[in-house]
Amino acid sequence: MKTRGYAVLQAKEPLVPFEFERRELSAKDVGFDIEFAGICHSDIHQAREEWGPALFPMVPGHEIVGTVTEIGAAVKDFQIGDRIGVGVFIDSCRNCENCKKGLQQYCLEGMTGTYNGYERNSQNIAFGGYSNKFVINEDYAVKVPANLDPAGVAPLLCAGITLYSPIKHWKVGPGSKVAVMGLGGLGHMGVKFAAALGAEVTVLSHSPNKASDAKLMGASNFVVTKESDWSKSYKKYFDLILNTVSADLDLEPYLNTLRTDGTLVVIGLPGKPYSVNAGTLLNGRRSISGSMIGGIPELQEMLDFCGSNNILSDVEIISADYINQAYDRTVASDVKYRFVIDAKTF
Amino acid sequence: MKTRGYAVLQAKEPLVPFEFERRELSAKDVGFDIEFAGICHSDIHQAREEWGPALFPMVPGHEIVGTVTEIGAAVKDFQIGDRIGVGVFIDSCRNCENCKKGLQQYCLEGMTGTYNGYERNSQNIAFGGYSNKFVINEDYAVKVPANLDPAGVAPLLCAGITLYSPIKHWKVGPGSKVAVMGLGGLGHMGVKFAAALGAEVTVLSHSPNKASDAKLMGASNFVVTKESDWSKSYKKYFDLILNTVSADLDLEPYLNTLRTDGTLVVIGLPGKPYSVNAGTLLNGRRSISGSMIGGIPELQEMLDFCGSNNILSDVEIISADYINQAYDRTVASDVKYRFVIDAKTF
Repeated sequence: MKTRGYAVLQAKEPLVPFEFERRELSAKDVGFDIEFAGICHSDIHQAREEWGPALFPMVPGHEIVGTVTEIGAAVKDFQIGDRIGVGVFIDSCRNCENCKKGLQQYCLEGMTGTYNGYERNSQNIAFGGYSNKFVINEDYAVKVPANLDPAGVAPLLCAGITLYSPIKHWKVGPGSKVAVMGLGGLGHMGVKFAAALGAEVTVLSHSPNKASDAKLMGASNFVVTKESDWSKSYKKYFDLILNTVSADLDLEPYLNTLRTDGTLVVIGLPGKPYSVNAGTLLNGRRSISGSMIGGIPELQEMLDFCGSNNILSDVEIISADYINQAYDRTVASDVKYRFVIDAKTF
Repeated sequence: MKTRGYAVLQAKEPLVPFEFERRELSAKDVGFDIEFAGICHSDIHQAREEWGPALFPMVPGHEIVGTVTEIGAAVKDFQIGDRIGVGVFIDSCRNCENCKKGLQQYCLEGMTGTYNGYERNSQNIAFGGYSNKFVINEDYAVKVPANLDPAGVAPLLCAGITLYSPIKHWKVGPGSKVAVMGLGGLGHMGVKFAAALGAEVTVLSHSPNKASDAKLMGASNFVVTKESDWSKSYKKYFDLILNTVSADLDLEPYLNTLRTDGTLVVIGLPGKPYSVNAGTLLNGRRSISGSMIGGIPELQEMLDFCGSNNILSDVEIISADYINQAYDRTVASDVKYRFVIDAKTF
């Protein structure tokens, strides 16, 4: 099907208007008109080949919301007119122990990314969400609650689930003391989810200028980590620290704020390895863990939770011809808190 | 009470015969004749001041087994003639949330070590187990099952619990795939416990010469990690890796052998920080954690488990005048698998 979007034609070049063909619907496919697509920092890393060799032309975008326009003959879970979401992957092996558990993000054969690769078992390039139409196998799509504003939903499909999944996995609830490192596209979702689940939330931020936003999102405390002795007031304090910062930093003062059996979860990908003192982990059976997006069942659970609690990402809506400027502003952390592209402008 | 033992009089000096006074019994104290005291590598680090400033004269020893000879008026749990054990700490604050949970090793006020410090709220130097008599508050002692050989029990009080605690905390059981890095005083206990709990155990060892021992202890697999591609056969294989190696090493190949939600537990203390790639943790929600000995309830649970399963440390019994040679051999990893001192020779 004829599709209009924006693409990077070669690494590091700006995005330009791009027309291409999406596959026609198979029996289990759902076709939809995209309404909004979020801009994730990882789109920029891939468009600029900062994470190794990439596949071009590249249509980025893995935070995709739209309205179903067409369904294949065997589709069971979607009807025309439904609001639908697609995230970071569009397929996986379906047979490994992780896929069977609904942890498709950890598929042992490797998940099939929404862009920057080929469709599964195919020579078709997978084109992402910076476009006006999409086709997805229904098993890899989720339903978006009707009461939610679709623009604020788009970033939930990556930024949202990236925080929701560890928050649930490490059992955050009433009484939990949770710290969120960095208040950006990822961090602001962490604050909203942890607060909605009843935790006491502390934002650990490099700069003081987001303190009032943090409070509005549900944080109880805001700590400026530029102050060298910030961690002394929070010694052995947190059950869970969510590290959304991708800059290189010394984890030691953060680890010292974990209480016994506490965990620091790494979500951002820094350029250099972390340096970790074994003694700091031994002292209180502390852990450093990693977490990566979430599987399809958890993605649906998160959207239902957002529907019930009226949780959305804070977004700035842009038109397609602003994507390149938006990239530069995202790199400069100059966005509150996520750009989403209005797909009518493709 | 008059006690004979061996002490280090100044940092880095050899141990020499040493006579000293232990406190007389208070109402909750138990006095006992030591039968055996294990030599732990951490004794050597402290005697040689390799872990920072230490307190001298130092009587090392925190793997202590003996027979009760005297009890205070308020003692409830011990009788004269009972076999008794003391481990790495002799007291703690008793009031913090960790002490109340029986996790005295993580006491928020700091546990009171068996030596290299003062008795709690006292100006008496705490002297350790390289001696013929001991006095302990009964709340910090454990009962040793009568069917176990006391020489093989001594190392359980530190080396044993150091492995038993993480093995239980991370729920090792039938179906678990556990790797033990290093087959020494710590590692050989990990193999025995994990195998007794029904896990498949793999020893990851620098050198091939302990393969037959590992099998006898219950290991199913023995991998020589000098072979550069050893980790390829174990990609995403282990649920739990117990790292008993205190040498500096690259954790990356080990982390890649962890399956989804797997944990590498650090037990040894290397000289340098570990270098950890965030991406390796993200890829499968992997964790690096620390663990340190165990609390009093778990120490008792372990000894009861050893009694039921007839588990002991493999030991080489020495007399007191051999301690200095034993230190050198321990540093050279030339012991199978733990030295214990016959306390009759003090």
